Amino acid sequence: MKPDAKVTLHMVASLDGFIARRDGSVDWMATADEYPAGATLDPEFVEAFLASIDCYVMGSRTYEIALGFEANGAGWAYGDTPTFVLTTRELPRARDSVTFFAGDLAELLNGLRAEHENIWVAGGGQVAAELLRRGLVDEISYAILPVLIGDGIPFFGRLDADAPLHLADVKAWSSGMVELRYQVRRDLLQQPPPARS
Amino acid sequence: MKPDAKVTLHMVASLDGFIARRDGSVDWMATADEYPAGATLDPEFVEAFLASIDCYVMGSRTYEIALGFEANGAGWAYGDTPTFVLTTRELPRARDSVTFFAGDLAELLNGLRAEHENIWVAGGGQVAAELLRRGLVDEISYAILPVLIGDGIPFFGRLDADAPLHLADVKAWSSGMVELRYQVRRDLLQQPPPARS
Repeated sequence: MKPDAKVTLHMVASLDGFIARRDGSVDWMATADEYPAGATLDPEFVEAFLASIDCYVMGSRTYEIALGFEANGAGWAYGDTPTFVLTTRELPRARDSVTFFAGDLAELLNGLRAEHENIWVAGGGQVAAELLRRGLVDEISYAILPVLIGDGIPFFGRLDADAPLHLADVKAWSSGMVELRYQVRRDLLQQPPPARS
Repeated sequence: MKPDAKVTLHMVASLDGFIARRDGSVDWMATADEYPAGATLDPEFVEAFLASIDCYVMGSRTYEIALGFEANGAGWAYGDTPTFVLTTRELPRARDSVTFFAGDLAELLNGLRAEHENIWVAGGGQVAAELLRRGLVDEISYAILPVLIGDGIPFFGRLDADAPLHLADVKAWSSGMVELRYQVRRDLLQQPPPARS
């Protein structure tokens, strides 16, 4: 177990909390706002940031969206970084860095914690909800785009109990996106239910 | 019509977008976070801010929550500022500043725009959703508390179309609350449906 291993749940959402339309589309993410007081997202920052991520975990729907982007020429967003896809379905394997996993989420994350420090959960809503419900998340990185879409796939799912958070950072970008970073206050969490297996 | 009249939709919500639990309770709003980099909410600021509000508009559920606070000794949050409560029900009138209104929301707001500049909509979810759906909102003031509550009454309701926004301000408070202010981009809004009457 890496002593500093950390599981971060990351998502980009509309202000009304949706990560995709009901049909999975994310066309609304191309917002046209400008917030002059915000920071500029320069390519070197993005590169250094992506290089800091040791592995990705995602659900099968998110993986399919990523495959769709690649098929449409937008490229594969996760580079050669090891990417673990939670699924019980047969899905095409995009590249060698992709591993499918059909077992228990806690088991996967414990395995990853032994080898990786910065474990990045890229969604979607079902995986996020299960992780939060089971107390398996250290940090939430929640980026809010300046748009309401009215309906869609929500980022946050139902929880069995409140999850108190600690606000760790707030960053506004010149695109009008606001990024909030929270630590899950495990010290205040009610006991999560035992892992299913 | 006051030329600078502005309708602001204001709400305090959990990170997962709820303004109250299903039973209307808001006990979870007493979060225990500290964000040292945030601004301190000093009493003079609060007083000046509240004095800048010319009138309040709210739904009947929000009004009942306010009545409940007052009954529990927490006081009446809206001072002597004119407060318009949307309802078709018979409700106790908390004070002289309260007016009940059972007609169309657009008609109420147009009337208020003739007399007031800073019109503050204090919730709840149903009123917020109708205002947004009908393009009657100029600004959204959305304050996020550092907690997930997993279920409850959502702030944002279903819309018929996307509502593009302009990020106008971001403020983090020492309590861990983050306040986002947006302008609704009416220039990009699709035509709202005609007013029901």
